[in-house]
Amino acid sequence: MSADTMKDIVALCKRRGFIFPASDIYGGINGFWDYGPLGVELKNNLRDRWWKDMVVTPPIGPDGAPIEIVGVDSSIIQNPRCWEASGHVGGFNDPMVDCKESKKRYRADHVFVLIPKDGQGTSFAFDKDAEQSDIESRLKKFAKGKSASDFEKEMLDKVPAKMFASIIGPDAKEPGTLTEPRQFNMMFHTYVGAAAGDENKAYLRPETCAGIFLNFKNVVDSSRTRVPFGIAQIGKAFRNEVTPRNFIFRSREFEQMELEWFCEEEEVPMWFDFWVEQRTKFWEAVGIPKAELHFLDVAKEDLAHYSSRTIDVEYRFPFAAPGFDELEGIAHRGSFDLTQHEQFSGTKLEYFDQAANKRFTPHVIEPSTGLTRGVLALICQAYTVDESRPSGVYLNFQPGMAPKKAAILPLTAKEEHVPLAQKLYMDLREDFAVDLDIKQNIGKRYARQDEIGTPYCFTVDNDTISDQTVTVRDRNTMAQNRIHMDKVKEFVKDRIR
Amino acid sequence: MSADTMKDIVALCKRRGFIFPASDIYGGINGFWDYGPLGVELKNNLRDRWWKDMVVTPPIGPDGAPIEIVGVDSSIIQNPRCWEASGHVGGFNDPMVDCKESKKRYRADHVFVLIPKDGQGTSFAFDKDAEQSDIESRLKKFAKGKSASDFEKEMLDKVPAKMFASIIGPDAKEPGTLTEPRQFNMMFHTYVGAAAGDENKAYLRPETCAGIFLNFKNVVDSSRTRVPFGIAQIGKAFRNEVTPRNFIFRSREFEQMELEWFCEEEEVPMWFDFWVEQRTKFWEAVGIPKAELHFLDVAKEDLAHYSSRTIDVEYRFPFAAPGFDELEGIAHRGSFDLTQHEQFSGTKLEYFDQAANKRFTPHVIEPSTGLTRGVLALICQAYTVDESRPSGVYLNFQPGMAPKKAAILPLTAKEEHVPLAQKLYMDLREDFAVDLDIKQNIGKRYARQDEIGTPYCFTVDNDTISDQTVTVRDRNTMAQNRIHMDKVKEFVKDRIR
Repeated sequence: MSADTMKDIVALCKRRGFIFPASDIYGGINGFWDYGPLGVELKNNLRDRWWKDMVVTPPIGPDGAPIEIVGVDSSIIQNPRCWEASGHVGGFNDPMVDCKESKKRYRADHVFVLIPKDGQGTSFAFDKDAEQSDIESRLKKFAKGKSASDFEKEMLDKVPAKMFASIIGPDAKEPGTLTEPRQFNMMFHTYVGAAAGDENKAYLRPETCAGIFLNFKNVVDSSRTRVPFGIAQIGKAFRNEVTPRNFIFRSREFEQMELEWFCEEEEVPMWFDFWVEQRTKFWEAVGIPKAELHFLDVAKEDLAHYSSRTIDVEYRFPFAAPGFDELEGIAHRGSFDLTQHEQFSGTKLEYFDQAANKRFTPHVIEPSTGLTRGVLALICQAYTVDESRPSGVYLNFQPGMAPKKAAILPLTAKEEHVPLAQKLYMDLREDFAVDLDIKQNIGKRYARQDEIGTPYCFTVDNDTISDQTVTVRDRNTMAQNRIHMDKVKEFVKDRIR
Repeated sequence: MSADTMKDIVALCKRRGFIFPASDIYGGINGFWDYGPLGVELKNNLRDRWWKDMVVTPPIGPDGAPIEIVGVDSSIIQNPRCWEASGHVGGFNDPMVDCKESKKRYRADHVFVLIPKDGQGTSFAFDKDAEQSDIESRLKKFAKGKSASDFEKEMLDKVPAKMFASIIGPDAKEPGTLTEPRQFNMMFHTYVGAAAGDENKAYLRPETCAGIFLNFKNVVDSSRTRVPFGIAQIGKAFRNEVTPRNFIFRSREFEQMELEWFCEEEEVPMWFDFWVEQRTKFWEAVGIPKAELHFLDVAKEDLAHYSSRTIDVEYRFPFAAPGFDELEGIAHRGSFDLTQHEQFSGTKLEYFDQAANKRFTPHVIEPSTGLTRGVLALICQAYTVDESRPSGVYLNFQPGMAPKKAAILPLTAKEEHVPLAQKLYMDLREDFAVDLDIKQNIGKRYARQDEIGTPYCFTVDNDTISDQTVTVRDRNTMAQNRIHMDKVKEFVKDRIR
């Protein structure tokens, strides 16, 4: 997989109605994407599976009894004081540099600089995802034939300011055109009420978890949940990214699925391991093999002061291949959030354990993943090149995740085939999402179903009229068999479970 | 039902975890609400039912074949040009007045003025929802004992400016303190990118339908849909309301469920009637009796220039009783939206009918409802006072909409009862949302389930050990019967279909 694979995936997503650039007819808007008919179904399948696994049928705990998790759905806009407590107003900043020559803007931590080992000549800045071949050819042309091995690599945000005069920006030809990094808050702001003054300034949430901490007390007071328990939320979040990139991987509007698991401090190590195991099982169940995941145990010196452990679950996205990039983070957040909100709001957020007759502020373990990022992982994982078939490619979705579980195809648009196909369609659609596609030659219709990842096609033909059997075609093997119409529903249900 | 009923409903929603004020621990933020553990389940049930009825199993059309509807999920933030095309940048305004005495702000079309019939003395302004008794007592005290019948009523936005000097504001004591109405755009704005200048200004969508029109061409090009067909979307929308009110009825952040049905102009009357009938059936199916709905056929002179008909489906919300307020709007929008976007974007949005070999811009019928407003209607409709039972009230949800379909209650927390209850819970939760509640006396647990609207409680007791039967208690009748544990799943499934 490579950058070219990403281009093919983006093109397929548009051509078949998974994902479109937002405001496409207006030339788009950088960092925003819309989900088309198949994209929204795929996204809903992943969303519903997460919600079922978390809230409806939460896993069995270490003691053999099911654990307890409830859901919430909080506002995108909250009282702005909550973002002071969370640290986002003061600290949610990206270091940005502008290039006076190219007029482009970069995140300093997304740009690296090649500094000559011999201290002679200029340094060259590159986008962190630059291809090795492009790096070498630029050096060959502009660095007097030097190669990358003649340089030391350093991220731009770590380079001392006095060196900037000798750096040539990623899209520039002259040195010294990059400004020093400036801090830029990534929260979108707006104004609530008629006046657009500071007293009315509010923010679009940069993550959904804050809405969980804000509701911790109301949830405890109104439900019968007892620590340990979890609160789950799925919803949109917004970050004013300086350089949105990699399709829906880093967009400015996206969806998160976050669980905050509240437990006693002594039990943190046990629950942390529990959640790493559960989340790995989840990704495997929706079609991401463990071999494509990488578990990055964040180094102690890089952890926040309140955290004892964080694991980034990374997936081998094509744009990162042969490396990985983040799909989910599982973080021990200590009691930081509840303590901060208690201090800033003046509302007690301690938990009272009646059985033990003690008060404490629970610790939190947070498995946090992107729903939209998960959709991208499912598409990338399913994308399979097969030049032997007409479509040249098919999407090998795990059947439960596929936007359409089955397609019903009358062999011809003749009078005899269509009513039987409609009858089968009407019966199946009560139980799962099914496509009825009547016109066009059957080969083209199979090719379309391959490209949208439908695991099974059922074709109604002349034999159906005489013996009530239909052809079932398997997406992955293209093998065809006959099956009685009455067995079709159970056939599909068995395979999407 | 009355304003007091609304207060009781708001209190129940907070006490039992349906709906909390957003940022409650920070004193809230006016016009924003969070959904608690039960509220989010109720909202998801209504959301999923609408999506199933629209996208997964769309209704049978007038020709006897199922109609075709696909879904999309578009960004909240779009290219700002799209809001110029839709008319929202220029025209989405509310007339606002400020009161210099009370420092309060009002929507001029939400305030009425009582003007003395005899032309003598001052006029009095009132909030449009003011109670008749409050109006009379204010007049008695400050209008020399006059009563409402001595006045003519006029909405404030229709009163000539020269009369403002003689009007006493709703919360004022002196006349002449209201400013003349000023226009105020209801779209929240933000800035995309690093600079907060006009060139980066963008808006939070005030309605979801624009995202459908923006994607019309991409949907037609990528899917096999043919006119007539529909595109459906569920998602958040934002309006900077001057005076948010009536709980979640008029909030600043809310969720919509919108269908745009594209058809030929000649077929508009047929499809309009079709959608009014379908949408009425929907509300009946989720528990809103037709008798509680009112169909307001908007008068010709009040219609937009491009529309031949609009029907507001109104529900008897307690705050409007004995009147009604809007739950859904079914509007003929003509070809206005596609034509405007074609003109502003320069992208052709005509539809080509291959069979008839003709090009045209489809007309649109839009059934548009509020998901969050629908949740409020379900709660208000379910709210039933019954002083004969310990809770004093129960929520009579249609079983399919109830957040929990069943509760499993071991009679005691004894060794013998709990494992059987857990076993039943584990079996049922695979098929529907079920509550397992172990501790507290059984009366209190029944009362709690009544207040959250669980239709059936199953109690495990000593007889369960010997004959595997449990008690089933009906929420509405409180009648109790015994049923074999093996029959419980089918019992509930039959009743939530």
